[in-house]
Amino acid sequence: MNKKSYFRNTVAAMTGYTPGEQPKVADIIKLNTNENPYPPSPQVAAAAAKFCTDKLRRYPDPTADGLRNTVATLNNVARENVIIGNGSDDILTMTFRAFTAPELPLACLDPTYSLYLELAKMQEAPVIRIPLAADTFAMPDNLLALAAPANLLIITRPNAPTGNTFPLRKMEQICQNFDGVVMFDEAYADFADDSCMSLAVKYPNVIVMRTLSKSYSLAGIRTGYAVASADIISGMMKLKDSYNMDALAQVIAQAALEDREYFAETVKKVKETRKALTAELTALGFYIVPSATNFLFARPPKRNGEEYFKFLAAKHVFVRYFKQPATAEYVRITVGTPAEMARLIELTKEFLAQ
Amino acid sequence: MNKKSYFRNTVAAMTGYTPGEQPKVADIIKLNTNENPYPPSPQVAAAAAKFCTDKLRRYPDPTADGLRNTVATLNNVARENVIIGNGSDDILTMTFRAFTAPELPLACLDPTYSLYLELAKMQEAPVIRIPLAADTFAMPDNLLALAAPANLLIITRPNAPTGNTFPLRKMEQICQNFDGVVMFDEAYADFADDSCMSLAVKYPNVIVMRTLSKSYSLAGIRTGYAVASADIISGMMKLKDSYNMDALAQVIAQAALEDREYFAETVKKVKETRKALTAELTALGFYIVPSATNFLFARPPKRNGEEYFKFLAAKHVFVRYFKQPATAEYVRITVGTPAEMARLIELTKEFLAQ
Repeated sequence: MNKKSYFRNTVAAMTGYTPGEQPKVADIIKLNTNENPYPPSPQVAAAAAKFCTDKLRRYPDPTADGLRNTVATLNNVARENVIIGNGSDDILTMTFRAFTAPELPLACLDPTYSLYLELAKMQEAPVIRIPLAADTFAMPDNLLALAAPANLLIITRPNAPTGNTFPLRKMEQICQNFDGVVMFDEAYADFADDSCMSLAVKYPNVIVMRTLSKSYSLAGIRTGYAVASADIISGMMKLKDSYNMDALAQVIAQAALEDREYFAETVKKVKETRKALTAELTALGFYIVPSATNFLFARPPKRNGEEYFKFLAAKHVFVRYFKQPATAEYVRITVGTPAEMARLIELTKEFLAQ
Repeated sequence: MNKKSYFRNTVAAMTGYTPGEQPKVADIIKLNTNENPYPPSPQVAAAAAKFCTDKLRRYPDPTADGLRNTVATLNNVARENVIIGNGSDDILTMTFRAFTAPELPLACLDPTYSLYLELAKMQEAPVIRIPLAADTFAMPDNLLALAAPANLLIITRPNAPTGNTFPLRKMEQICQNFDGVVMFDEAYADFADDSCMSLAVKYPNVIVMRTLSKSYSLAGIRTGYAVASADIISGMMKLKDSYNMDALAQVIAQAALEDREYFAETVKKVKETRKALTAELTALGFYIVPSATNFLFARPPKRNGEEYFKFLAAKHVFVRYFKQPATAEYVRITVGTPAEMARLIELTKEFLAQ
């Protein structure tokens, strides 16, 4: 028997990205992966019920043009400016295959979404980390100088896991002056006051990526999209799996996108709860990074993030903890329902009284 | 405005894979992408109806363990030997990222599924084409010598677009003697008399890939899987998108896999129609490559494949034509319903009478 490994060395050396835990115990409060506490639009159930599964014998529309049209209308761009992905992970995979290589580095923030680092490894692309300021997690003034050697700059806006956003004016300056592709990962932008969407077709080197996982309560159906110049989109099309979106997911995503009223209501509820939770935790002595997302990056009064995380987990409330130096004093808490937040506050008081 | 392209050179130079046409006109007979003429199991509709779409607010099981268990049981292997993909395209993407690179070539048959060539380009991996014999499309005796420089050897078995299979005994010899990973793309194996599945865990360097698109009538839901040693599977897991299978697709695929009776019936019907169609076309003077799939690779008496293809298309019967030298005299015809095949034969007689 041959016990040799045939994996590329870079793959053999990788540990791989670990997604947030999906605990299998019942009766927990799950605030660890920024899922929406509310179900998707009732139009989703209606669209699924109406869908004739006999049609599944046929391949789906390979480019999901119905969904592209809906996304285009919603964002005031043309269909040629839109690509659909099997979750924004799929869009990221295309983006890294398109714009990174051993001689084409990635630049991204630090801290930020750690999946980017794994995708860079797969491409054997060097990574330039742009350190954010302590506590405020603001961008450094010399970002453009630091990022200059990169071919792809990903700005997660609002950022994760920190929750803060960056001035829109500064984003446009970056697009104008960065000699490479600027991708804005806007997974959380629906919970913010502004977005970079208008930059996506104004500049030929800009990609704005969105997901339906958070604001549309559709993490389970895996739908993301990107908006960019027609040149960028047609290049990315060559790199996607031939039929990357299943037929039923296309219909479900479209139903969710079209129900604007439900979307607006859900986002409003989450933002109200975020405001209330921020006030309550602040009153208890926490430092909360100003959040433009559906989660809070929260530092307990004694800066003992890990202890707080473990205390909550023992009581079946799951938040997320990131052990790296810049984030170790904090936990990331998904904004849940008011009832879930009441339980969180109750436990937090117990924790502080210890 | 910057009009520079930031794509990797190799991506800029690609044209990309063109999937088989999905004609939008109504009232056609579609025999061009090897879809199953029968709908998926009634259990699929039942599973979809029972699925509560409110659950879609949560992320799906990232490794689709329920589905992995079902696949494992079906193939008499352990869950650790199984990975699930968003269609077998997704499995191929992982495989190419794992085992090909500029210094790690691919070897594959010629002719075969042309997507492999596009995936090799994305990895900048050299490609060794192994020419099959004219007319029989049999493997050359010196396959191992030809493939030796490669790190990944893909054997499409039964092959597409030719429809023939290769002796199982020879496949095992290849697994024993090839110093690299051997992947058997078994997209059509459910229509054949044997399969390489038993080799997948017997040898540490073998991957067997299947899809639910053909024999389970689920092209629309995008589900494929691979069976291999636990080492290979755990390495491939690092390369897949974090949540590559949506929650509803997992449930639907599982329902289809579990309905063994419907599966057996459907495959039997397709094989019976294949046999009848082979006899009828042969009687009309066609040469038919012996098919172990749900399609026929068929050469008209005058070897005028392209004319036959165009004649049928003008009458709204869509088959597939591949213009490359080795395949130019043939068309590929998906086995449809008996009624669809009767119409095909009627038109074929018209064509021959011209």
